[in-house]
Amino acid sequence: MKVVPYWEVTAESLEDPEASGAKMRWVIGQKDGAENFAMRVVEIAPGGNSPLHRHPHEHEVFVLKGKGILTCEGEKTPLIPGDVAFILPNEEHQFRNTGQDKLEFLCLIPIKK
Amino acid sequence: MKVVPYWEVTAESLEDPEASGAKMRWVIGQKDGAENFAMRVVEIAPGGNSPLHRHPHEHEVFVLKGKGILTCEGEKTPLIPGDVAFILPNEEHQFRNTGQDKLEFLCLIPIKK
Repeated sequence: MKVVPYWEVTAESLEDPEASGAKMRWVIGQKDGAENFAMRVVEIAPGGNSPLHRHPHEHEVFVLKGKGILTCEGEKTPLIPGDVAFILPNEEHQFRNTGQDKLEFLCLIPIKK
Repeated sequence: MKVVPYWEVTAESLEDPEASGAKMRWVIGQKDGAENFAMRVVEIAPGGNSPLHRHPHEHEVFVLKGKGILTCEGEKTPLIPGDVAFILPNEEHQFRNTGQDKLEFLCLIPIKK
């Protein structure tokens, strides 16, 4: 068992050149013994965005703080705290912070076995 | 892609006789096309608790609201919003609401394949 406040886990900048003002905290992952899926907390600064990309794994997302837009296969959906988003494998997607404060959300992915 | 505020998903009572005042919303699951893991939002009323049990699958937990205690293998850890908990397979665990308001947390589990 492990319990940790998420803010104590280091936020690492997303190195993707298509990302802007985006950081990620790996709060549960393989280093903890997770074998099936990993939990990350993503934060995006006002005006920033995650890369517009697609990949073979799904995302399970829960919005914690802030205000944003999820673009998925060209469709734009506003996001507020408490929103749950499920992005299917290979759907093109991007998160953008449209608010004045940090946008923070959980983003979980499967672990390849 | 699916986006839904979690409170729009029906909260179902936990039928386990060892649970008290506990409900669960299945916000992402197999019905949505999730093949690897499922996201649920658990809520426990003041004074309530989840069953004290163990099972072969892990839990990945993120506390959203309220105040509680996680008992895991006999060890008690206080929980507040923003806490992340990882419960390993087969660890005996129970969540208890020790606050005046609802305790709410995300609890993700793998989907059997």
